[in-house]
Amino acid sequence: MYRKIRMGMIGGGPGSFIGGVHRMAATLDGKIELVCGCFSSSPEKSKETGKALLLPPDRVYASWQEMIEKEAALPEDVRMDFVSIVTPNHVHFAPAMMALEKGFHVSLDKPMTFTLDEARQLAAKVKETGKLFLLTHTYTGYPMVKEARARVARGELGKIRRIYVEYPQGWLYNDRIAGNKQAEWRVDPQRAGKAGCMGDIGTHAFNLAEYITGLKATEICGELKTFVPGRLLDDDGAALIRYEGGARGVLMASVIAIGCENSLRIRVFGEKGGLEWAQEEPNTLYMRWPDRPMEVIRTSTPYVSPIAAYNTRIPAGHPEGYLEAFANLYRNFATALGALIAGEEPTPESLDFPSAEEGVRGMQFIETIVSTGDTDKKWLKL
Amino acid sequence: MYRKIRMGMIGGGPGSFIGGVHRMAATLDGKIELVCGCFSSSPEKSKETGKALLLPPDRVYASWQEMIEKEAALPEDVRMDFVSIVTPNHVHFAPAMMALEKGFHVSLDKPMTFTLDEARQLAAKVKETGKLFLLTHTYTGYPMVKEARARVARGELGKIRRIYVEYPQGWLYNDRIAGNKQAEWRVDPQRAGKAGCMGDIGTHAFNLAEYITGLKATEICGELKTFVPGRLLDDDGAALIRYEGGARGVLMASVIAIGCENSLRIRVFGEKGGLEWAQEEPNTLYMRWPDRPMEVIRTSTPYVSPIAAYNTRIPAGHPEGYLEAFANLYRNFATALGALIAGEEPTPESLDFPSAEEGVRGMQFIETIVSTGDTDKKWLKL
Amino acid sequence: MYRKIRMGMIGGGPGSFIGGVHRMAATLDGKIELVCGCFSSSPEKSKETGKALLLPPDRVYASWQEMIEKEAALPEDVRMDFVSIVTPNHVHFAPAMMALEKGFHVSLDKPMTFTLDEARQLAAKVKETGKLFLLTHTYTGYPMVKEARARVARGELGKIRRIYVEYPQGWLYNDRIAGNKQAEWRVDPQRAGKAGCMGDIGTHAFNLAEYITGLKATEICGELKTFVPGRLLDDDGAALIRYEGGARGVLMASVIAIGCENSLRIRVFGEKGGLEWAQEEPNTLYMRWPDRPMEVIRTSTPYVSPIAAYNTRIPAGHPEGYLEAFANLYRNFATALGALIAGEEPTPESLDFPSAEEGVRGMQFIETIVSTGDTDKKWLKL
Amino acid sequence: MYRKIRMGMIGGGPGSFIGGVHRMAATLDGKIELVCGCFSSSPEKSKETGKALLLPPDRVYASWQEMIEKEAALPEDVRMDFVSIVTPNHVHFAPAMMALEKGFHVSLDKPMTFTLDEARQLAAKVKETGKLFLLTHTYTGYPMVKEARARVARGELGKIRRIYVEYPQGWLYNDRIAGNKQAEWRVDPQRAGKAGCMGDIGTHAFNLAEYITGLKATEICGELKTFVPGRLLDDDGAALIRYEGGARGVLMASVIAIGCENSLRIRVFGEKGGLEWAQEEPNTLYMRWPDRPMEVIRTSTPYVSPIAAYNTRIPAGHPEGYLEAFANLYRNFATALGALIAGEEPTPESLDFPSAEEGVRGMQFIETIVSTGDTDKKWLKL
Repeated sequence: MYRKIRMGMIGGGPGSFIGGVHRMAATLDGKIELVCGCFSSSPEKSKETGKALLLPPDRVYASWQEMIEKEAALPEDVRMDFVSIVTPNHVHFAPAMMALEKGFHVSLDKPMTFTLDEARQLAAKVKETGKLFLLTHTYTGYPMVKEARARVARGELGKIRRIYVEYPQGWLYNDRIAGNKQAEWRVDPQRAGKAGCMGDIGTHAFNLAEYITGLKATEICGELKTFVPGRLLDDDGAALIRYEGGARGVLMASVIAIGCENSLRIRVFGEKGGLEWAQEEPNTLYMRWPDRPMEVIRTSTPYVSPIAAYNTRIPAGHPEGYLEAFANLYRNFATALGALIAGEEPTPESLDFPSAEEGVRGMQFIETIVSTGDTDKKWLKL
Repeated sequence: MYRKIRMGMIGGGPGSFIGGVHRMAATLDGKIELVCGCFSSSPEKSKETGKALLLPPDRVYASWQEMIEKEAALPEDVRMDFVSIVTPNHVHFAPAMMALEKGFHVSLDKPMTFTLDEARQLAAKVKETGKLFLLTHTYTGYPMVKEARARVARGELGKIRRIYVEYPQGWLYNDRIAGNKQAEWRVDPQRAGKAGCMGDIGTHAFNLAEYITGLKATEICGELKTFVPGRLLDDDGAALIRYEGGARGVLMASVIAIGCENSLRIRVFGEKGGLEWAQEEPNTLYMRWPDRPMEVIRTSTPYVSPIAAYNTRIPAGHPEGYLEAFANLYRNFATALGALIAGEEPTPESLDFPSAEEGVRGMQFIETIVSTGDTDKKWLKL
Repeated sequence: MYRKIRMGMIGGGPGSFIGGVHRMAATLDGKIELVCGCFSSSPEKSKETGKALLLPPDRVYASWQEMIEKEAALPEDVRMDFVSIVTPNHVHFAPAMMALEKGFHVSLDKPMTFTLDEARQLAAKVKETGKLFLLTHTYTGYPMVKEARARVARGELGKIRRIYVEYPQGWLYNDRIAGNKQAEWRVDPQRAGKAGCMGDIGTHAFNLAEYITGLKATEICGELKTFVPGRLLDDDGAALIRYEGGARGVLMASVIAIGCENSLRIRVFGEKGGLEWAQEEPNTLYMRWPDRPMEVIRTSTPYVSPIAAYNTRIPAGHPEGYLEAFANLYRNFATALGALIAGEEPTPESLDFPSAEEGVRGMQFIETIVSTGDTDKKWLKL
Repeated sequence: MYRKIRMGMIGGGPGSFIGGVHRMAATLDGKIELVCGCFSSSPEKSKETGKALLLPPDRVYASWQEMIEKEAALPEDVRMDFVSIVTPNHVHFAPAMMALEKGFHVSLDKPMTFTLDEARQLAAKVKETGKLFLLTHTYTGYPMVKEARARVARGELGKIRRIYVEYPQGWLYNDRIAGNKQAEWRVDPQRAGKAGCMGDIGTHAFNLAEYITGLKATEICGELKTFVPGRLLDDDGAALIRYEGGARGVLMASVIAIGCENSLRIRVFGEKGGLEWAQEEPNTLYMRWPDRPMEVIRTSTPYVSPIAAYNTRIPAGHPEGYLEAFANLYRNFATALGALIAGEEPTPESLDFPSAEEGVRGMQFIETIVSTGDTDKKWLKL
């Protein structure tokens, strides 16, 4: 296909952090170009952002409804191929549904929707329309996360017994967040949904554990907690998790772990070996063995798995970071999309990105862990 | 007092790991000398060990009862001042009780006893006799653990919110332990007690969290697990913990965390700052702040607290390890004991070692976490 | 300026590593677009690469001479604004000179030229034409390198005494490099120049030390070494360096440091404090003090210097890597270029990129260290 | 031999750091007891220290001459077996010579003597008397240093090419050292000798490199530097080193590397693999390979070499530190000495401690590197 994939964006206006990340990530590999957008619920701000992004004014829209409508009416060789939705959680479901119905592929920030029910409807719609759907669980885009998954899959660790996954952040340790747009909506139940910390980052941790181990969580025993006075949503929590096959997990997430940055970390122990990966040192995967030295697996070395190599751009020792991990999601999505557009079968590697199923799992996790506060029952089925 | 404190030992014969550790730790500072012992339930092995330790044959005993009896009958300026009991858990209570009753001070390996009830009796006996009692929770002997406690105590972290304490080991990941004396008794309910992993190392983690934060756990929601087929005691487990004042904790312990060595680690987050300490890198304490750089506190630097400096022997950058931490317990105990013998008041620093109260707490922890398997109740009071 | 800066590229065809890096780095921030190129000395390969990059065929050229010629003849609102030259060292000087003469700004990979004399001519041409010139010493683009420089500049370390800079790589530890285009030209004096390892990476280390400390090296006492039999250029070397003001340095570089990846690291010690930065963990800067704890400075935190913040895209804990550092060079260059085009004065921050002066310094370093092999003189003036 | 080895000590009085270290190290394993001493050139202070050490007053001497004389006159089953000399450098030669001549074995702190000539005389005397001689290059006592040496010896790294050894300390970064006895004599040419930093710690670095690689340095090109105004000896320096067989080294040592503690570190690269060890994290040895993951070798694991296991006391993950490394020297020395006394052949493992040959090498290193300041010659033969 001798052209770039065309992306439209909903959200990502002034004050947005994730909008710019999506744009850098999507365009890093030269396979995607931003062609249109509705960047804010304020038409003025949308226009302003569109201008800063050097977009033609007629492709900057005042509302997402208008954008989807008008883009659908454009000629096939002009209109966007997919829409990237990077709004707060309460504006995920409606634009995603409309985009799918109007024939667009969709990239959607996590968590998938506001409620589990919406997630299920959306997943059904994805299935029904046959469109590609990307849920941007960024951390699964790291090469060493894929390496970890590949090693578990080929049995290097043996049967999995124990999973520790943790995600401490400290940025919301107090209530002085006025003016921080990112912070504000994340602690507002009207925009974030039923869960705060657990919805925002707990879902990443939950997803990472299932992605790497290939195991599904079956039961949860957890507790959410709100430490900052006056806050309406959880800002901390932990859970014991039972996985299929008998593995046991602990999941910890916090936005009041003062002084922590973005410290997602996972450890998995099986009958034959163990692994450890931490997001802040993402190009290193530690493999532990009972009777020989720990091995330090590094991105872009000759010995990594094909899937890790496929998701790497530069030589070993040249750190790839968060944007490259994010870009892997988009590049794989765009590669698969390019194949679809060209009438070809997407390769398995290109289809290695989180999708609607992961989105539904995430919403199940949120609903379940939120329920732990309403009951004395120890274990809740997922 | 112009002499060394005289120590007798019960346990620590052939194949023992902890016996040798106690001997090195006790004598490192030149304040304690080993004068007698009953090193094994086998008189022959006891004799053999006594010989290897260059003890006079008449101070090597065939049974601990004989030893306590005969030592008590020796002249005051000859007989041991205290007994160090380093046997498996089922041989803690009886010799400790008898030693106290016969007028000896006692050092005892953890966990304190076989049952909570025994622990309470023993604690009462300690109180009744006024003898000094050391429970060797080694990890509280590290200078940076004491530094952590001092900083929490003086409010550097503000009110404590969140505690993560973990203790993964991997050495018992399978059942091929025949001939490893250390391993054998730890998985045998007849010698270890009701808990395996949680009794052996979970208690250390539990103690460390209470020691550093100064907070008492009030409720536990946990799950124990036995992964190795045929094993009779837990080899892994995790718990959510509620602390007084509203803090929340997670405690994780495992002996099947394959490839892990002795990875006790704690993180504490308060309203103003956070700290992190890991046993395998013991001379470093990390202090995290919301608005300024993380600080790396190091043993033996000019800026550490007096209590950390007091428990340090050598200059910064010359690593002090496990034996030195252990030796701090003994040195403090011996210093306090020397004062008592000299008719003086022990200094507060010298009394900074774990004692009967910590022992009872540990047994409460064991009994409670073992009970989580017998009930659907989510939270159990400690 | 309501458009992107237009970039042409010379080099970066099949098998090139650095070409793709330049393209990703240049376009990451949406300020630069690739509009034309001559990607190989083989017209066929050039065309092939142009096609893979989705360029219009008439902007893909068969030779760099043709490209500069024809682009210069295009209308001002179509032709490239600058050319990025990413060829092996022997094809740096001529295209850069021609591009400048034809009115184009230039981005050039390091080392600047084949000989010191060429570097001086080129620097004079830059001055004469007033065009912007970027020499891509990537590592100065990292936020924490800029933080280090800012802290030295404002006196936090006091007068500088001691500099250690090292750059071990291991990828050329043997002679089995056939087919690795990157490796081949780097060990070939016809394409690399007088120095191998020292020209390729020693210059980075040299530049980094001068950039961070603001001090100029004045004398060098070094030794180059070729360990791999049959190799014609140095693959390892070390030097003692005297800096103005009395500071002393050691510079170590190697491509036979087996198993090392890309381990550029610098430590600087002054009268009041010290710093350390390592490229493989680029978002961390360590600050050491005599009487208070080491501080761990992290990218994108609230307390970093304005210049570090200016060169950062995402929040703390979301690792920025090599491509982002590289992109900072291009973004700053493009920002300055945009101002020039718009007839404005570039901001000081935008002019913070390595240029011709650094290029001449690097060539002086190469010529001097290569000369150490020809003389018994201990110290050579730079 | 059913008794402890009897040690006398010269030096180690009030304010001494290393005296206490020697005492703890020597007695840690229960094989050596301190029986007498002359702890200071002041008889009063000697007495005071002897009392604090609980020694019988008649075994505390007013001068080292008196001590050696009187001890020699004691019955064989009472007198000391060896003397441990822990004085400043200018009081090494004379007591060591006298002790050897009077029939005592000797343990001596490094550097061996005040001058190279003395070292040679002393080495000759050791040979002549056949007494055991221990030079306490502590760092060769670490298990992972021995592991490194064993791996080089059995060819795991292939032929050695490149050695980096560094020893930055920061404690003497300024001249406010009055009252710090350790600092005072180390910067005083009357007591330290010709070299300051290089004599005190450069010799450790030099020794470590030769010990691990088994290679002898042949030529040195170096520069010493005194940064602190008014100081009479070097406080910093670096050297390029040529080793036999063509390997190249860099040695860096400093006591003005502000904020550094005791950061001895070595990296060795051969044709097949590389290794790295750092004293502040002593239980870890990193092994690097060209085509497989770095391995993290850890003290006390099942896979380490017999010589490393032999020099280890406790299980993996229980950190052994500086005192244990130091104790290994003494334990090996005492084991060999016990064998000699018992009329047996010492085992090879027990003879693995630094001795007179290493002492002479160290003095050659000092004399050579000090000479670099007096000549323009680039390379000086060792």
